[in-house]
Amino acid sequence: MSTLYMGASEETVAKYVLFSGDPWRVEVLKKYLDNPKKVAFMREFNTYTGTYKGVEVTVTSTGIGAPSAAIAMEEMYESGMEVAVRMGTVMSMQDDMLGHFMVPIAAMRREGTSQSYVDLSYPAVADVELVNVMNETVQQMGKRYLNGLNCTMDGFYSCMHDSKFSLEWGRDMSETFEEVKKLGVTGIDMESSCILTLGRLMGVKTCILTLVTVLENLKETLKGQDRVDAEDLLCRTALEGIYNYHVKKEAGKNE
Amino acid sequence: MSTLYMGASEETVAKYVLFSGDPWRVEVLKKYLDNPKKVAFMREFNTYTGTYKGVEVTVTSTGIGAPSAAIAMEEMYESGMEVAVRMGTVMSMQDDMLGHFMVPIAAMRREGTSQSYVDLSYPAVADVELVNVMNETVQQMGKRYLNGLNCTMDGFYSCMHDSKFSLEWGRDMSETFEEVKKLGVTGIDMESSCILTLGRLMGVKTCILTLVTVLENLKETLKGQDRVDAEDLLCRTALEGIYNYHVKKEAGKNE
Amino acid sequence: MSTLYMGASEETVAKYVLFSGDPWRVEVLKKYLDNPKKVAFMREFNTYTGTYKGVEVTVTSTGIGAPSAAIAMEEMYESGMEVAVRMGTVMSMQDDMLGHFMVPIAAMRREGTSQSYVDLSYPAVADVELVNVMNETVQQMGKRYLNGLNCTMDGFYSCMHDSKFSLEWGRDMSETFEEVKKLGVTGIDMESSCILTLGRLMGVKTCILTLVTVLENLKETLKGQDRVDAEDLLCRTALEGIYNYHVKKEAGKNE
Amino acid sequence: MSTLYMGASEETVAKYVLFSGDPWRVEVLKKYLDNPKKVAFMREFNTYTGTYKGVEVTVTSTGIGAPSAAIAMEEMYESGMEVAVRMGTVMSMQDDMLGHFMVPIAAMRREGTSQSYVDLSYPAVADVELVNVMNETVQQMGKRYLNGLNCTMDGFYSCMHDSKFSLEWGRDMSETFEEVKKLGVTGIDMESSCILTLGRLMGVKTCILTLVTVLENLKETLKGQDRVDAEDLLCRTALEGIYNYHVKKEAGKNE
Amino acid sequence: MSTLYMGASEETVAKYVLFSGDPWRVEVLKKYLDNPKKVAFMREFNTYTGTYKGVEVTVTSTGIGAPSAAIAMEEMYESGMEVAVRMGTVMSMQDDMLGHFMVPIAAMRREGTSQSYVDLSYPAVADVELVNVMNETVQQMGKRYLNGLNCTMDGFYSCMHDSKFSLEWGRDMSETFEEVKKLGVTGIDMESSCILTLGRLMGVKTCILTLVTVLENLKETLKGQDRVDAEDLLCRTALEGIYNYHVKKEAGKNE
Amino acid sequence: MSTLYMGASEETVAKYVLFSGDPWRVEVLKKYLDNPKKVAFMREFNTYTGTYKGVEVTVTSTGIGAPSAAIAMEEMYESGMEVAVRMGTVMSMQDDMLGHFMVPIAAMRREGTSQSYVDLSYPAVADVELVNVMNETVQQMGKRYLNGLNCTMDGFYSCMHDSKFSLEWGRDMSETFEEVKKLGVTGIDMESSCILTLGRLMGVKTCILTLVTVLENLKETLKGQDRVDAEDLLCRTALEGIYNYHVKKEAGKNE
Repeated sequence: MSTLYMGASEETVAKYVLFSGDPWRVEVLKKYLDNPKKVAFMREFNTYTGTYKGVEVTVTSTGIGAPSAAIAMEEMYESGMEVAVRMGTVMSMQDDMLGHFMVPIAAMRREGTSQSYVDLSYPAVADVELVNVMNETVQQMGKRYLNGLNCTMDGFYSCMHDSKFSLEWGRDMSETFEEVKKLGVTGIDMESSCILTLGRLMGVKTCILTLVTVLENLKETLKGQDRVDAEDLLCRTALEGIYNYHVKKEAGKNE
Repeated sequence: MSTLYMGASEETVAKYVLFSGDPWRVEVLKKYLDNPKKVAFMREFNTYTGTYKGVEVTVTSTGIGAPSAAIAMEEMYESGMEVAVRMGTVMSMQDDMLGHFMVPIAAMRREGTSQSYVDLSYPAVADVELVNVMNETVQQMGKRYLNGLNCTMDGFYSCMHDSKFSLEWGRDMSETFEEVKKLGVTGIDMESSCILTLGRLMGVKTCILTLVTVLENLKETLKGQDRVDAEDLLCRTALEGIYNYHVKKEAGKNE
Repeated sequence: MSTLYMGASEETVAKYVLFSGDPWRVEVLKKYLDNPKKVAFMREFNTYTGTYKGVEVTVTSTGIGAPSAAIAMEEMYESGMEVAVRMGTVMSMQDDMLGHFMVPIAAMRREGTSQSYVDLSYPAVADVELVNVMNETVQQMGKRYLNGLNCTMDGFYSCMHDSKFSLEWGRDMSETFEEVKKLGVTGIDMESSCILTLGRLMGVKTCILTLVTVLENLKETLKGQDRVDAEDLLCRTALEGIYNYHVKKEAGKNE
Repeated sequence: MSTLYMGASEETVAKYVLFSGDPWRVEVLKKYLDNPKKVAFMREFNTYTGTYKGVEVTVTSTGIGAPSAAIAMEEMYESGMEVAVRMGTVMSMQDDMLGHFMVPIAAMRREGTSQSYVDLSYPAVADVELVNVMNETVQQMGKRYLNGLNCTMDGFYSCMHDSKFSLEWGRDMSETFEEVKKLGVTGIDMESSCILTLGRLMGVKTCILTLVTVLENLKETLKGQDRVDAEDLLCRTALEGIYNYHVKKEAGKNE
Repeated sequence: MSTLYMGASEETVAKYVLFSGDPWRVEVLKKYLDNPKKVAFMREFNTYTGTYKGVEVTVTSTGIGAPSAAIAMEEMYESGMEVAVRMGTVMSMQDDMLGHFMVPIAAMRREGTSQSYVDLSYPAVADVELVNVMNETVQQMGKRYLNGLNCTMDGFYSCMHDSKFSLEWGRDMSETFEEVKKLGVTGIDMESSCILTLGRLMGVKTCILTLVTVLENLKETLKGQDRVDAEDLLCRTALEGIYNYHVKKEAGKNE
Repeated sequence: MSTLYMGASEETVAKYVLFSGDPWRVEVLKKYLDNPKKVAFMREFNTYTGTYKGVEVTVTSTGIGAPSAAIAMEEMYESGMEVAVRMGTVMSMQDDMLGHFMVPIAAMRREGTSQSYVDLSYPAVADVELVNVMNETVQQMGKRYLNGLNCTMDGFYSCMHDSKFSLEWGRDMSETFEEVKKLGVTGIDMESSCILTLGRLMGVKTCILTLVTVLENLKETLKGQDRVDAEDLLCRTALEGIYNYHVKKEAGKNE
């Protein structure tokens, strides 16, 4: 039987799952797969399964926010997922990282969804081994990596970005940015802490791979072909990382 | 300039906005509009603007969960929205409501996103006048309505529905259902309390219109043509409600 | 057996109950009843039952604060109450409402008593049908109404009003006022959110009817005969509203 | 100028203030005063000032619950109060205390009002010297005293006593009683922790004097003349305690 | 069998226990005992049992912070402790108390350990009778006492004292001091509220005896021989207090 | 100037600091150092600085509990610490780990001290690179490692271990163990989450190295010479890990 929201099943999903936030970027990811087969595109969940260098991988999407990301984690787990990698682009708080990678080791849990699973004292922390493989993969791709912290929040226009309403209300987003920078946060998003928390609770090896395409305050931004190339790099790095992890684990079995 | 996630603007959005959760159901809604013009389909946000009986209406989607629903409310507000109606199908806790309508007057705020705007003491309550018009419209369509309470939660598989993981963990969803029934809750969802809270804070007239397609514990479910007819009825009722509200307000101006 | 604090019973209490905060104003209310019979005046609870235009009504008091208001709701419920109307005078945050009515659709729950019944995510919301009848009644009396929000708080001299102690401590009440105005609050009191929460939990139809006798910062105040007339109007409007509601419900039965 | 709710002023209030919960018991207290002068009986606040053995004392009431008790403390402080004694009858959790006195040294703060003044980490603790004098006074009256803890709560019918509604909801009050007994609580009420907290913050010497008239589960109750005698004893002990405290302080000044 | 961390037992521990924070000061305390026998010096717990004026007393240490203080209370309770006195030096917020004593009647519970026993509504309050005896003992020693409040906190360098890190972070300790002074706090420490809370829950008579050796902002400090004499006085006063309490209780038994 | 509690300074402390919980085990650690120089033994803080294979290392203690551990972190940071390793023995929840190592990647923050620095949403997570080096070092020593989660709590006898008092109160410690096992926790302690949180905030590279000497429920325990050998192994592994990390960083500089 296929799952409620994503139409997935053990038959159609691989043990390696790569999550995009945006369902439409899955169409890009799909191009890197051999023999991609459509699982379903329901709601904000767009799913294909194919192979990369011979390793079976499912690429899918979480939509925006922790509630739909939790549904994606749950239904992929129901379908046999063992390794989860979330990928995305990110704004960096550090100037020298434009075009390079953030592989956060953990995330601040400022969202409500993971709290419906476990109280806030629990850390949203990535799998060390998977992080190590991603670090190495980033270097193989000729880029630098940073193992910092993400801060995940529920409110985009209440905490991260000005809006007509936030300005009318007199909200000052710079307070959020000042606070999290002081705490050593290197990226802000809306899903990571929920994905890391659920991954750890489920026993699914989980990590986050993000590429810096913007600097804080829009000081500098990748544009045009640079941006296209960057997203291309992000997709390939994520898939290479999964491939490298697979090879490493298989090698470990034969020792 | 068009908005960040939805690609909307004051030029392309009407003051009446109808929100579906599912972006694909917007395609159905669109059929009821005259001259629908595509605004954009980005991420989980699928948006058209057209007219219904001569009244300009925008139909769009929120995706699953309060974080993306808040983005939708914010960007529509940025684009000039003055009246917001969220529509959807719902499971009823009351047996005699299958095929009839729930127009909740308020919602329990068990999600994190609206808390990033205002503390929990604040009520997520619909606009009385809009609720009254929806009640009348439901009756005009030959159906009954109930003005109960919704309960909005962030965790679908942690609070509302069994999953492989919830069963492994020994979670018992019936506790949630018993608790909320005792509290007079008539429907459970993942967006309403956030939409109502933001609507009130923004000064946008807001309500929720839901059609019962399932009874609790799946005792009875609308299927096949009945289900298709029901969803058709839901779309038409929502649009008729907006039309009736518009007529009433215009009449008020001329008094 | 009569109840512990109010000395009430099913024999002596009507299904329509009108609550004043001040026990002494019940003496005024009593004058509008035919054949008022004293139930009891114990502690801060002063209770009479009589008829208004042939409809049996109980008039009583809650005293100041949510703890005694909850006792009043509980003991009236024990005695058969089905419809509860709280009436009072109120300070308006909107200048054009002096001498007109506030019929709040919901209230912020900044008091501890209702939290001993249900967590803060639950909305303190009035009964829509009763609110509609009160709105109509206000208009029949030649006045305007506003369906806003009340904010209910436990601390009068810690949150709402300067005192010798608050000044010594350096408390600034204007912070409270600025905050709640931004949230769309139209009135501040000490009982409403508790009464609305309990009414909904009990299945008692409940609403709040308040008359503006003061503008914020005492900009303008009804005085002398105007004040007497206003309170007279408040009493009659509350009783007329109950009468209208009764007539409407009886008419509904005969349909 | 007299205070808002109580109609009190520095001219009409003594520095020693004795608080009853019930406004009508103030009429009894008044009989023990020489030359009692009525200050006002507004809302649930009934106030007289007179002398006891030559010491000027004000007797007044708080009504039920911490919100009105806080108003009473604030307006008496505004009027010059320096010493506050709350008196009342109480149910004992200890069987051998019927007809004897509880003089709690502190109280659990399970009410919302004192939290609008100071966070919960702050202790609601009585003045040691005043407690010592009350202990001695109780012994002079031929009775025993116990310096235990009170537990103050906002919800009478949600936490302390069965009601029609609590039974329908399936609330079990015995849980409250078992918990607080385990914590060493000797009495339950609705005002003490707020009065003690405010007294300490204001620098007003404050204590609670209660007489046991009922044992837990109504095992034994003082009735008829025994009850009348007991309340008489309570009034006299409270006034004697204030007199003794006054004498002690005057003696201290002359040392 | 001896206890896990302190190596104590009913055979080696007296019913009167005197706690120092610093394990090394126990060596000083020991000099005032007749026939002191070493129980153990494990971790931060240094324990001797001997007699003072014929009364058997155990002197021991808690180390810094509430977690180790709770272990000390638990293991001493396991070993038969009935009366607990914590002694220490303290900074005074009141200028005229240098060289005099603080015997706090209660403490603010801003530490996490006592919250693992009982919720924050519970007061951390000393035993009145023991406090009274300490007050008298202080006067016998020719000094003044103050029965104020302590504030106990977990974070020394986050709340009470500047550090390299707190300065880099821009923390301002004066906020803590201003706040607690306004609340009537007379001393700040890291163990008292936990010791008082556990003592009351356990039924162990407990109090805190502290000697002021520093004024706020280091305005004045006892130094050199004055400091040595002061600590000597503190040790003797604590032991005298225990002796006086013992004598009083024995006298009570014989009445 | 030397620090307040530990008597340390930039002159006497190395950039690599190894923390034991027990001050007396520092005496054992000291034996592995060349030219150890005593810094101070004040309170529960026993500190030496020496060299290990030519690398300067400070060995010191935290005492029991997060409050004193935070002081140790702060004063070592004040004295120039750049890398912090906490070592200790631990009870394992997994049967096959006796005599092997836990190097937790993160810890649950169920203690109050780190909350005085940063809210609970922040993860207490170790430094990845330092964890990797410790993992390798453990393998070099011929042992296995596990990168799980610790759970840090303030209350030893309220959450982790039966006591006379916990049994009288009817506390059931097995609830704690069942809960944390379900959450994937592999070790319980009283300091780790505070040390990891502060380390990350300070920019100090931090990790925890623990050796399993007991299995859950005391199923199996290392005793006698096995225990001595194990603790010897723990000390050597910690120091080797620091040495390896130093070599790796120096190599990195020369690349």
